[in-house]
Amino acid sequence: MRRGTTYATLPHIGTQKPPLAQGVLTTMATVKLWTDEEAEQDERVKTVFDDIRATRKSDFVNNFWRGLANQPAILERTWLSLKAILVAPGALDPLTRELIYIAVSTINGCQYCIHSHTAAARAKGMTDAQHGDLLAVIGMAAETNALVTAMQIPVDEAFLK
Amino acid sequence: MRRGTTYATLPHIGTQKPPLAQGVLTTMATVKLWTDEEAEQDERVKTVFDDIRATRKSDFVNNFWRGLANQPAILERTWLSLKAILVAPGALDPLTRELIYIAVSTINGCQYCIHSHTAAARAKGMTDAQHGDLLAVIGMAAETNALVTAMQIPVDEAFLK
Amino acid sequence: MRRGTTYATLPHIGTQKPPLAQGVLTTMATVKLWTDEEAEQDERVKTVFDDIRATRKSDFVNNFWRGLANQPAILERTWLSLKAILVAPGALDPLTRELIYIAVSTINGCQYCIHSHTAAARAKGMTDAQHGDLLAVIGMAAETNALVTAMQIPVDEAFLK
Amino acid sequence: MRRGTTYATLPHIGTQKPPLAQGVLTTMATVKLWTDEEAEQDERVKTVFDDIRATRKSDFVNNFWRGLANQPAILERTWLSLKAILVAPGALDPLTRELIYIAVSTINGCQYCIHSHTAAARAKGMTDAQHGDLLAVIGMAAETNALVTAMQIPVDEAFLK
Amino acid sequence: MRRGTTYATLPHIGTQKPPLAQGVLTTMATVKLWTDEEAEQDERVKTVFDDIRATRKSDFVNNFWRGLANQPAILERTWLSLKAILVAPGALDPLTRELIYIAVSTINGCQYCIHSHTAAARAKGMTDAQHGDLLAVIGMAAETNALVTAMQIPVDEAFLK
Amino acid sequence: MRRGTTYATLPHIGTQKPPLAQGVLTTMATVKLWTDEEAEQDERVKTVFDDIRATRKSDFVNNFWRGLANQPAILERTWLSLKAILVAPGALDPLTRELIYIAVSTINGCQYCIHSHTAAARAKGMTDAQHGDLLAVIGMAAETNALVTAMQIPVDEAFLK
Repeated sequence: MRRGTTYATLPHIGTQKPPLAQGVLTTMATVKLWTDEEAEQDERVKTVFDDIRATRKSDFVNNFWRGLANQPAILERTWLSLKAILVAPGALDPLTRELIYIAVSTINGCQYCIHSHTAAARAKGMTDAQHGDLLAVIGMAAETNALVTAMQIPVDEAFLK
Repeated sequence: MRRGTTYATLPHIGTQKPPLAQGVLTTMATVKLWTDEEAEQDERVKTVFDDIRATRKSDFVNNFWRGLANQPAILERTWLSLKAILVAPGALDPLTRELIYIAVSTINGCQYCIHSHTAAARAKGMTDAQHGDLLAVIGMAAETNALVTAMQIPVDEAFLK
Repeated sequence: MRRGTTYATLPHIGTQKPPLAQGVLTTMATVKLWTDEEAEQDERVKTVFDDIRATRKSDFVNNFWRGLANQPAILERTWLSLKAILVAPGALDPLTRELIYIAVSTINGCQYCIHSHTAAARAKGMTDAQHGDLLAVIGMAAETNALVTAMQIPVDEAFLK
Repeated sequence: MRRGTTYATLPHIGTQKPPLAQGVLTTMATVKLWTDEEAEQDERVKTVFDDIRATRKSDFVNNFWRGLANQPAILERTWLSLKAILVAPGALDPLTRELIYIAVSTINGCQYCIHSHTAAARAKGMTDAQHGDLLAVIGMAAETNALVTAMQIPVDEAFLK
Repeated sequence: MRRGTTYATLPHIGTQKPPLAQGVLTTMATVKLWTDEEAEQDERVKTVFDDIRATRKSDFVNNFWRGLANQPAILERTWLSLKAILVAPGALDPLTRELIYIAVSTINGCQYCIHSHTAAARAKGMTDAQHGDLLAVIGMAAETNALVTAMQIPVDEAFLK
Repeated sequence: MRRGTTYATLPHIGTQKPPLAQGVLTTMATVKLWTDEEAEQDERVKTVFDDIRATRKSDFVNNFWRGLANQPAILERTWLSLKAILVAPGALDPLTRELIYIAVSTINGCQYCIHSHTAAARAKGMTDAQHGDLLAVIGMAAETNALVTAMQIPVDEAFLK
C-alpha cells in the first residue's frame, strides 16, 4: 500500500478470487481463504464482510478475514474486538494505536501483521520520520530488554511505589 | 512511581547503596550493581552517571545503569543511544515512544522494563484511559498475531505495492 | 496434506531428489538437505531414515530429517525422542499431542512446524471444528498472556498451595 | 491449587482484600487490583465479577480480573471471550483446552498464566502422567522449532497440498 | 555461584531438603521438587541423580532435575541429552557452549536457566570481559533482529548460494 | 555464501541495483532498499556505505544497510555499534560472537539474520562439526528453557551466591 492511499482508494479486488499462492508472497495458508462467492452463502460471514466494507469504506477484505471465515464465531468476535479497539474513538489516536500494533507484531515476528499494519499506519498518515522513530524505539527496547534479562536486574523500589 | 511524579520528584536514593535483594522484588542480578561510591572511582562510569542525573534532573540512577557499569563501553553506548532515541526531540512525542517501549517489553516479557517504562510513561502524563487503550491494543495484536501465524495467512498483494 | 490422508497415502516422493528451492515455499536451508542416495551411503542416517519409513508406514521422509542428516548424532537423538514422545502410546492421545505441538510452534513462529504438524493433526483426524477451537484457545491465551504481563499481575496464593 | 480441588472447593478468599505484595510471589502489579468493596461500586465490574462467581460456582475471583477491572470495557470483552472459548461446550474437551493454554503460556513465559492454568487443568482432572506428556511435547516442540528455524528448512510440498 | 568455583566446590546441599519457597527466589514450582530421600526410593531417579553427581564430581543436584524426577522417562532422556551435548567433548569448547546456552535462555526469558548457566559459565572460566562481550552481542543481535523484522528485509541472494 | 568464502570473495554486486523481489526469497520490505546511486546522493549514507566496504574489504553492501539508509541516524548508530561489537578485537573471538548472534536470531525467528550470520560464521571458518554443536546446544537450551518454565522451577540458592 503506497503512502497516502487509504483502504478506500485501494484497487477493488474484493470481488475477485483472493490471490492464492500466486504473486510475491507465496506461503500457503493452513486453512481455506474464502472467496466472496463463498462468503455470500454463509449469513454470519456475509454480515461480517459487509460490516468490514462499510466500516472501512472499501470493497477490499484482506486475507486474514478470509481465513477466519472458516470459524464464523471467531470471525465475529475478532472483528467486533478489532472494531472496538482500533477503529472506535479512544484515549489514543488511531495512528498511535497502529504504531503499537506494529511494535507487538515485530517482536512476535508476524510477517503478515507487520505488512498489514505498516500499510494501515501509512494510510493513517505515518510519515517516514515517524516510521524511523518507531524503528529506533523498537530496536532500542529489544536491545535493553535483552541486556536487562541477561543481567537479571532487580526492579528498583522507586518503580513499585 | 506514582502518576504525576517525574524522575526529578522521585525520592533521592541515588546516594545510598542500591537496594540489593531487599524489598519487594528480590531477584538477584547475575552481575554486581554498582554503588555511587564505586561509580565515583571509574571515570567513564562517573561521567555517564553524571549525565543521566543532569539529563533527567534527578539524583536517581536506576539499577539498569548500575548493572551496565560493569562494562563501561556498553554503558556509554547504551546511554548515548537511549538519550538520542527516547530523550531527544523527534517525530514521535515522548509519551508515544514510552508506549511503544512498553509494548515491546511486554511481548519480550521483560518485567524490569515493563515496570520502569510504565513508571516513565506515567511520569510523562499517561492517563489511566491511555493505559487502558495501550493494554487493549497489545492484547488484540498478540491475539491476531497468533491467529495469523497459526493459519499462515499469505500477505495480500495490496499491502506490498 | 489433505484432510483424511495419512503419511502412508502420501505420494511416494522419497526416492526422488528432495524439492530444493523449487515449488511454493522457496526459502533455502542453511544446510544441505540429504537425498535418498546420500542417505544410503551413511549407515547411521540410513538406519534412521529406514526407521522413520517403517514407523510411519510411508516412503515419505520430510525435509526436517534431510537437514538433520548432516549431524547423525542429533538426527538419531531427535528421532528417538520424537518417536518416544509423539508416536508411542502415552497418557495423552496422539491428536492432543499434535494440537499441543501446533500451539507451541505457533507461538515460536515456526512456519515449517506449523505446516507439518497441522498436516499431521489432520492425518490423525482433526476436524475443522477442532481446528477452530484450537485457534480460539491459542489466540485467547496469547491475548491474556500479554494483558497479564503488561499489568504484572501477582500470582494468587490459592494457585500456589 | 492441589490436584483434585475445583474452583468451587478453593478457600473462599474473595471477600478479603486481595493479597497485594504479601505472601510467596511478591511482584507488584503496574495497576491497582480491585477489592470486592471497590468492585461493588462499579456496576459493570460488579456484573462481571458476579458472572465469574456464578459460572465457576466459587466466590474466588483471581487477580487477573481484579487488575482488568480498571478498564471495564476490556474486562467485559475478555471475560465474555474466555467464557465462550474455555467454558462453553466445544469440539475440544475442557481439559484439552487447558493443556493448549498451558503450552502457549509456557512459550510466552507468562508465570501467572502457567500457574493459573496448571491449577485449572488439575481441577479439571489432569493426572501427573498427562502433565508429564504435556511437558514432554512442549519441550520436544520447542527443541525442534529451534532446530528447524536455525536450519531454515523449507516446507515440503506434500504439506501444502 | 561465585566466579572461580566449580560444581565440585559448591556447598554440599544435596543431602538436605531442597530450598522450597524459602530464601531469595520464592516462586513455587507447579510440580513437586524431589528430596534425596524420595529419589532414593525410585530406581530410575536414583540412577540419574547418581550419574549427575558422578559426572559433575559434586553432591549438588539442582532443582531442575528434582522437578523432572516426577517424570522418570523425561528425566533420563533429558540428562542423557544434556550430558552428550554440554559435557562430552565436541567441536566447540565447553565455555562456548555455555555462552550459547545463556544467549538462548536470555531471549526465551528463562530466569532459572540464565542463573544456572551464567553460574556454569563462570565455573568454566568465563571472565568479566567475556561476559561483557556476550552481553554486547546478545543486545546487538536482539536490536538488529527487531530492525530487520520491522523492515521485512529480503535475504540477499549472496547469502543463499 | 559457500563455506570458505569471505565477504571479500563474494561476487561484487554492490554496484548493481539490489535484488528487489526477484530471486529466491521474495518478501518485499516495508521500506525502500537504497541503490548505490541513491546512496551516493546522501553524504551520511555514502559515508557509512564506504566504511562498510572498507571495513569488510568487499564491495558488497547487504540489504539490511540498504533498508536502514532511509534513516541515516539509525544507520550510523547501528553500523558503529556493530563494528564495535562484532568487528573490533574483544574478549571473545569473532567466530564465537557469530555463533551467539545465530543463537539469538534463531530464538527470535529472524530469517534474514540467521542467513546472514550463518554465512558470516562460515566465512569466519565455522566447520560443519561446529555448526552441528551449535544446533545441538540451541535445541537443547530451547527444550530445557521450556521445561523449566512449564514447571516454574525456583532458582537454587547456590546459583545466587
